[in-house]
Amino acid sequence: MTTTLPLDLAALTLARERIADAVIRTVQWQNDPLSEELGVSLQLKLENLQRTGSFKIRGATHKIGRLMAGEHPPTGVIAASAGNHAQGVARAATLAGLRAVVVMPTTAPLTKIQSCRKMGADVRLFGDNLEHAADEARRIAAAEGLEFLHPYDDWDVIAGQGSCGLEMLEDAPEMTVAIVPLGGGGLISGIALALKLQSPAIRIIGVQTETVAPYRRFLIDGSLEEVSPAAHTIADGIKVKRPGQCNRQVIARHVDQIVTVDDNAIAEAIVTLLERTRTIGEGAGVVGLAALMQKKIRLKADDRVVCVISGGNVDMTLVGRSIDYGLASSGRLMSVAVTIADAPGRLMGLIKTVAELGMNIRHVEHRRGELHVPVGMTEVILQMETRDFEHQRELLAHLAGEGMTVRNLLGL
Amino acid sequence: MTTTLPLDLAALTLARERIADAVIRTVQWQNDPLSEELGVSLQLKLENLQRTGSFKIRGATHKIGRLMAGEHPPTGVIAASAGNHAQGVARAATLAGLRAVVVMPTTAPLTKIQSCRKMGADVRLFGDNLEHAADEARRIAAAEGLEFLHPYDDWDVIAGQGSCGLEMLEDAPEMTVAIVPLGGGGLISGIALALKLQSPAIRIIGVQTETVAPYRRFLIDGSLEEVSPAAHTIADGIKVKRPGQCNRQVIARHVDQIVTVDDNAIAEAIVTLLERTRTIGEGAGVVGLAALMQKKIRLKADDRVVCVISGGNVDMTLVGRSIDYGLASSGRLMSVAVTIADAPGRLMGLIKTVAELGMNIRHVEHRRGELHVPVGMTEVILQMETRDFEHQRELLAHLAGEGMTVRNLLGL
Repeated sequence: MTTTLPLDLAALTLARERIADAVIRTVQWQNDPLSEELGVSLQLKLENLQRTGSFKIRGATHKIGRLMAGEHPPTGVIAASAGNHAQGVARAATLAGLRAVVVMPTTAPLTKIQSCRKMGADVRLFGDNLEHAADEARRIAAAEGLEFLHPYDDWDVIAGQGSCGLEMLEDAPEMTVAIVPLGGGGLISGIALALKLQSPAIRIIGVQTETVAPYRRFLIDGSLEEVSPAAHTIADGIKVKRPGQCNRQVIARHVDQIVTVDDNAIAEAIVTLLERTRTIGEGAGVVGLAALMQKKIRLKADDRVVCVISGGNVDMTLVGRSIDYGLASSGRLMSVAVTIADAPGRLMGLIKTVAELGMNIRHVEHRRGELHVPVGMTEVILQMETRDFEHQRELLAHLAGEGMTVRNLLGL
Repeated sequence: MTTTLPLDLAALTLARERIADAVIRTVQWQNDPLSEELGVSLQLKLENLQRTGSFKIRGATHKIGRLMAGEHPPTGVIAASAGNHAQGVARAATLAGLRAVVVMPTTAPLTKIQSCRKMGADVRLFGDNLEHAADEARRIAAAEGLEFLHPYDDWDVIAGQGSCGLEMLEDAPEMTVAIVPLGGGGLISGIALALKLQSPAIRIIGVQTETVAPYRRFLIDGSLEEVSPAAHTIADGIKVKRPGQCNRQVIARHVDQIVTVDDNAIAEAIVTLLERTRTIGEGAGVVGLAALMQKKIRLKADDRVVCVISGGNVDMTLVGRSIDYGLASSGRLMSVAVTIADAPGRLMGLIKTVAELGMNIRHVEHRRGELHVPVGMTEVILQMETRDFEHQRELLAHLAGEGMTVRNLLGL
């Protein structure tokens, strides 16, 4: 019944050698306090420290190398992407001396557009979403004689991503579990092959984001879930609606479990990664850590886990917001609207209560004349740094005790 | 005339061996786009990825090791610090099975207090500033029979920090310039010794923060500048008012130049580091990169620079602010107050202009009834992401052309 997959260990090893000069052999970070906190022996494979900020450079470099070594090397390549694939292709093509065209949706953030341009790519903006950009890229590929590079559904790309798995096992020969972000399936396909072909007992866990989880029931009944066109997630790097053909074959055979995490969990994981490793992960990059933190993966006491942080290309202007979101999710940021009498000394009383509880105030807004507040009353918006949810409940109890009406704006 | 310093290369090598198990041999990051941008061959020694988030663990581990190997090992140690030294001592002591007391100013951020507690330290809060905390620590040391650990003015500490310099030269044997953050002088003393004792031609540059620069004229006329008690800087890790005795001896002999950078430059460097390496540096940690970006250091075309990023323990709640500050400093964030007629369609006209220039809006506030705005007019506060200062000037010219009154709130 089982067909043979076109990649064996020798092919993966060869791919790794071919791209060795272009990629960084990233660090596999071991952090004892984090392992203790999560109750599991954990290493983090920091592909966010990879060249171009994600693992994508591995597959792109290998694919382009194979094309160049072929009988009819292309004069240029083209990719559609709003992020990491674009940067991987731009850099790999420039290094190979090839022309690179990247089609991005018009909604792509300024910084990503500029980053691709800096890497030497000819960036064209088209359409409202990635699907439209991809259609345009295929049209340009045909019109201008460029080679279209698929981000994941390609055996040469998968072989390139496999190098990440080979490094993981080399650095943690006793590993028993690999946790890998799952979008289209390029990274997990490469890693699963690299690991299972050497140590079939290692369990491979894929992690998708709650709102975009086509693979959710794939291992259970083979079905692919339809993704809503309106689906939103902060893990935009794995917001992939059409899983690949090659990837599905590998995943069906070699992946053991697929779990999902929501945006709150992802934001918390971004903060934890930043605090523990001082490195930044993008939403899609930290879903594995989020799944661990949420106890979504059943582990045994003696499991040795390697979790891939797959990328760190987060828009700078979003970092602050992600952090605040994560701090709020973990009870370390609180926002309340308190209605107090509009009389001298009342604001002082409120602020004093907050100070006595040892909370740091970040923001105060004293709003008289808001139409939803009764005449004679004033609404005060307070944002504070807190220790944890218990600390927040203390404040709420205090204020209630003083007869104040309080709305918890974050509603956590 | 020259007295012999008590540390030679053998002593530094021995110190490095002694602490090898406790510290990470951190990465020396090479980033070609960053080198190109700055026009210099540059490597970054990422001590922000060190255990406890800064180089301090090196010196603390070595000092505690020497104490334990002595004739009268202490029963516990005590340190005064609001940050990195505290964490280094807490971790090193815990690993050595020693009791650790840390005295922090009452103003220390919640997260740093909790982090030291998690590392097993007995944290006590005292006084408004570090000097008061240090006095209290010395009092407790005498009262409870604890060994007081100085953060930098100690030859064993300096020997420990020297291991960082040994690694730098090993990873970049052809380096010609080392750039090192300078507070009390512990790190630069160790690094200068490690480098100059092997390659006397390497130039050592120390970087202080503009408002706290006791060493500013030290190499010119031997003077130490008095620091204002009110001095403020985002580089709080090098906000040191009393340079050490040992450190001054090393700096006088082995450091070639001392430069300063201001908070704007530091904030920009935090953003650049985050974008280029995906790692976070604290203010004090990135002053070297800031000095490079500001062209404060005269370099030759063929210089090969290693710049130390000394730490990354930035309070999470401050990361977002630092990023915004850095984005603003580099022309990528703009905040304006525009006065428009209070009539239907006027806000739309303004927003349309912004959209047509390709700026992303982050924040809009439409304020009618502000007392400084003439009756019949409305003030609109706009915050936008922009490409650069040129982009910002375009907007200002457009709005002026439409007869609107505009105040640039960031005034850059």
